[in-house]
Amino acid sequence: MGIDPADRAPGVLDIDVAGIVANWRFLARRVAPVECAAVVKADGYGLGASVVAKALAAAGCRQFFVATLDEALTLRAALSECREVIVLNGPVPGSGGEFASSRVVPVLNDPGQIAEWQSVARGCRPLPAMLHVDTGMARLGLTMGEFARLTDELCRWRTIRWQGLLSHLACADEPDHPLNREQRARFAALRGRMTGVPASLAASCGIFLGRDYHFDLVRPGAALYGVNPQPGRPNPMRQIVRLKARILQIRDVDAGQPVGYGATHVMATAGRLATVAAGYADGWMRSLSRRGSGLIGGVRVPLLGRVSMDLAVFDVSAADPSIARPGGFIELLGNDYGVDAAAADAGTIGYEILTALGRRYHRIYRGAECLSPTC
Amino acid sequence: MGIDPADRAPGVLDIDVAGIVANWRFLARRVAPVECAAVVKADGYGLGASVVAKALAAAGCRQFFVATLDEALTLRAALSECREVIVLNGPVPGSGGEFASSRVVPVLNDPGQIAEWQSVARGCRPLPAMLHVDTGMARLGLTMGEFARLTDELCRWRTIRWQGLLSHLACADEPDHPLNREQRARFAALRGRMTGVPASLAASCGIFLGRDYHFDLVRPGAALYGVNPQPGRPNPMRQIVRLKARILQIRDVDAGQPVGYGATHVMATAGRLATVAAGYADGWMRSLSRRGSGLIGGVRVPLLGRVSMDLAVFDVSAADPSIARPGGFIELLGNDYGVDAAAADAGTIGYEILTALGRRYHRIYRGAECLSPTC
Repeated sequence: MGIDPADRAPGVLDIDVAGIVANWRFLARRVAPVECAAVVKADGYGLGASVVAKALAAAGCRQFFVATLDEALTLRAALSECREVIVLNGPVPGSGGEFASSRVVPVLNDPGQIAEWQSVARGCRPLPAMLHVDTGMARLGLTMGEFARLTDELCRWRTIRWQGLLSHLACADEPDHPLNREQRARFAALRGRMTGVPASLAASCGIFLGRDYHFDLVRPGAALYGVNPQPGRPNPMRQIVRLKARILQIRDVDAGQPVGYGATHVMATAGRLATVAAGYADGWMRSLSRRGSGLIGGVRVPLLGRVSMDLAVFDVSAADPSIARPGGFIELLGNDYGVDAAAADAGTIGYEILTALGRRYHRIYRGAECLSPTC
Repeated sequence: MGIDPADRAPGVLDIDVAGIVANWRFLARRVAPVECAAVVKADGYGLGASVVAKALAAAGCRQFFVATLDEALTLRAALSECREVIVLNGPVPGSGGEFASSRVVPVLNDPGQIAEWQSVARGCRPLPAMLHVDTGMARLGLTMGEFARLTDELCRWRTIRWQGLLSHLACADEPDHPLNREQRARFAALRGRMTGVPASLAASCGIFLGRDYHFDLVRPGAALYGVNPQPGRPNPMRQIVRLKARILQIRDVDAGQPVGYGATHVMATAGRLATVAAGYADGWMRSLSRRGSGLIGGVRVPLLGRVSMDLAVFDVSAADPSIARPGGFIELLGNDYGVDAAAADAGTIGYEILTALGRRYHRIYRGAECLSPTC
């Protein structure tokens, strides 16, 4: 009597893996001959790091950035040894040995992480690492002063093989922000101190600031998953996620009917409501209350009242009743209304819409099957 | 060379299972002799439905509410047969057979779900269900008109054993909202039409509206997990979650230093910053940017600038440097600053802080081991 999980699921999250590959190729072509890595931290921005990384590896991507050691261990198991897995957070004190034994490359962000990695390497073999220098964000990375003091010494060491010199832009989504040029100039000066080490400054938005931001390696994340790397301009990236939520109930209501928690919406006229099985526990954020919308049968329908934990209510008065019926779906994310549009309604950025996507959706990965691994 | 996952984790989420049990017992005593169920939907409000439900079952809780069939199947496998697992969303069209074969009790919300369940029951055996009637929220449940039309017929059927008559309050967190009394009055009238069927109106906040809201069964969720069921008044519930994020780096900065994305914070004076390994991908919501705070060594420290995907920056100038060091922790949630406080800073409710809690934390369940199952 079992039915297909997709047929009983409260929502279906369709992930266009071939589209992620197409987005990576688009960026790789744009920056060529500069190398193009992929950022798959936060479980591939919520979409599944292993699936995404395997597809990109098959397409030729060689370097994969994650945030934590646990993420790296998962990815290391999914990828062949010829692909590099790099941990942006670097080693937590005491975890250096685990990085080395798992063949994971740390980004070293402060003198303590450098010392830990050097001590592990002294006891085993020369080990690879990337060095992160902060050029104006005060988040992670050596200070400019620490870099100035340490760099000659670092370059003399035989224990650490420097595979990259990194920094990160604070304002790359605002092309005219003066900090972009300042960070670029500082980074250009730094790299002169570590000749022969590949330099990397740009993530998704940074790629679109121009070729002088590309250096030797770019590290796109968000753009791979469809987030617009040029806010305010047409999005050159393919939309990757399509999300639809199951209609549980259709209800005809009279004018004056309050809708949802707090009775914050009151029907001005009679209408027809659809209650769908997605709420803020599914990442359909509560800040979308009274602002979000969905799509059904080509008709855009407004979300009414507050988003509940597991439910949301839409006004489907304008929709075809043969489509707006229990068991049917309302599209929450798609080509028409992508992660950036939802983010604008939720008062956040597309990145958070992606990473918030919940675990109760049935996930369909499209285009992952046709990619064969290469090394 | 492996180290304990807790020692390499970017954050540690401590879940006081004994506290959840204590909260349930507190509510059960408060409503006795009325029965007290537990709502464990959305994976136990993000804390782990199976662990929570097993502990509550051992404490004597007999009915567990979830939102979806998939959640019910997971819970059914974790609990003995004498505990009821009830699905608030009811059966998606075509899934009734799976409910029956899995011995899961549906809440029936509309005539279509009733018809589906009746059809399954006709083909197998009398089946249990609960009936949900909407008394003023326009979300899920029969309309009052549908109930009036159908109820005599429903009570005559031998195919469905009615185990509950439910409704849900829209404004229970606002004791003075007139809709509470209206919904209560409507529900009291409804239950007269289904004599002998246990009636349930109140969830966490509804319990605190008074005994005339308790009827035969209450269904607390949020309060079990520490959310205040009486907003604006002292919280009678025990705090359940303690969350601490790992410090990756400590940095001394000068006045004028911009911090984080968008350079939205600029240091007014020199200070010391700590970057921790938790961000919005971990549910430390981006709306906490420039408003959140943490605790270290008894000192409350402000979050500076924007929350990043995997990182957040705190001003630890006032903290003891022997504690504010890489590898140490900043407490993000605790007794001092619980889910409601974080929610106020994030512009949401404690429920969403809980359900957003991420997957990268190392989870420690306290007090789960001392509970032996009973039936």
